[in-house]
Amino acid sequence: MTQIDRRAAAALALLGPLAIAAGVRAQPGTAAAPARAAAGKKTVGVILYPDFEVLDVFGPVEMWAYAPDLRIVLIAEAAGSVRSAQGVSALAEFGFANAPAMDIMMVPGGNGTRVQLNNAAYIKFLQDTDKTTTLTTSVCTGSALLAKAGLLKGKRATSNKTYFSLAVQQDSSVDWVKKARWVEDGKYITSSGVSAGTDMALGVLARLYGKPAAAQLARTLEYVWNDDSTNDPFAIA
Amino acid sequence: MTQIDRRAAAALALLGPLAIAAGVRAQPGTAAAPARAAAGKKTVGVILYPDFEVLDVFGPVEMWAYAPDLRIVLIAEAAGSVRSAQGVSALAEFGFANAPAMDIMMVPGGNGTRVQLNNAAYIKFLQDTDKTTTLTTSVCTGSALLAKAGLLKGKRATSNKTYFSLAVQQDSSVDWVKKARWVEDGKYITSSGVSAGTDMALGVLARLYGKPAAAQLARTLEYVWNDDSTNDPFAIA
Repeated sequence: MTQIDRRAAAALALLGPLAIAAGVRAQPGTAAAPARAAAGKKTVGVILYPDFEVLDVFGPVEMWAYAPDLRIVLIAEAAGSVRSAQGVSALAEFGFANAPAMDIMMVPGGNGTRVQLNNAAYIKFLQDTDKTTTLTTSVCTGSALLAKAGLLKGKRATSNKTYFSLAVQQDSSVDWVKKARWVEDGKYITSSGVSAGTDMALGVLARLYGKPAAAQLARTLEYVWNDDSTNDPFAIA
Repeated sequence: MTQIDRRAAAALALLGPLAIAAGVRAQPGTAAAPARAAAGKKTVGVILYPDFEVLDVFGPVEMWAYAPDLRIVLIAEAAGSVRSAQGVSALAEFGFANAPAMDIMMVPGGNGTRVQLNNAAYIKFLQDTDKTTTLTTSVCTGSALLAKAGLLKGKRATSNKTYFSLAVQQDSSVDWVKKARWVEDGKYITSSGVSAGTDMALGVLARLYGKPAAAQLARTLEYVWNDDSTNDPFAIA
């Protein structure tokens, strides 16, 4: 745990995670939203693509943005609007060409996964980015993309249970876990389908700031956190 | 087709009214995402504002987009990029001036709620839109905005439990329910804080398409649905 982590953990434990945001909440309309300033913060990059699944992205973003030392950025092959599988669009602030260095990378799933499996630029960006991350994470079929990039070789990982074979097909050297809400193997953290990503994201906060802080954040956001990564109501045989 | 794929196909076939979305999933990478074509569809409009809460918006959008006869649009005072309280931005396709008629309206909560309570243009847009909706819904502090617009007078409603007083202050004629995951009073459906919106959204699908279809969708998205609107783990006294 770094000094910054310790300070953050102490702050989160003493004030409750939302208390930090509440300082901002007391001054609505200011430009000082928690995730905006980059100074001294770790960068979490979500690597979007067309037809990404919205909850894969915004469940984790919701949770991670409350950590005072994380800033979240959306990145895509080209900066600008990226349309989701649900038809609405998010804005990628950065393209691959000008993306910032990332401490944490997150690869979402969605209907567009299969297209990106054959997009050499997307796969290479994952490979390049992974070289310097401290955590590389995925939600849903995002783990198929990590596997295609060769980042999960010989590791334990999981994926969306409905489309599990898509992940398995990318790399059979991976120990694909059929019963897991999420799987942590070193710096690689993969979650099961869609909604599981939100539980995984809180698991990441627990790893960085301690479980009580993550649990308190979940309560504040009225979220019933499945905090046991092995408790998978949607496991397959 | 693998065994797992067959199982998925069988599960998706059970979706009934939501099965068309599953058909889209069977052809990943096509441009035919469920919410894109407007023809013959009901319009669900999410009324964004700066510093909206991302999960308030994208939890419900995730669920509603799978209904084959709903299309989701993001709307804001001015069309274009709208920054969330979490620092990332979504794209409003329409401004108030050119917004389509809506069958269902959804008002999210978030840090920016207080600013909009004093924005006459936002409040008037809610009043005008409500005149023709068949369902008017909110998540989190979004119900404070509905109350400010006078749309909840004498009705039962709920809100975020941490900021409950903000809603109460807008209209004391409302029967504000302190123990509810969400509340339905005629066409007005209000949910509790942040994560509760996703449960409410599935409740809306249950109302429109039947509970089995909503429950099946939740399972497919690996979501543990709290399907009892009165079961509120975060109730206040």
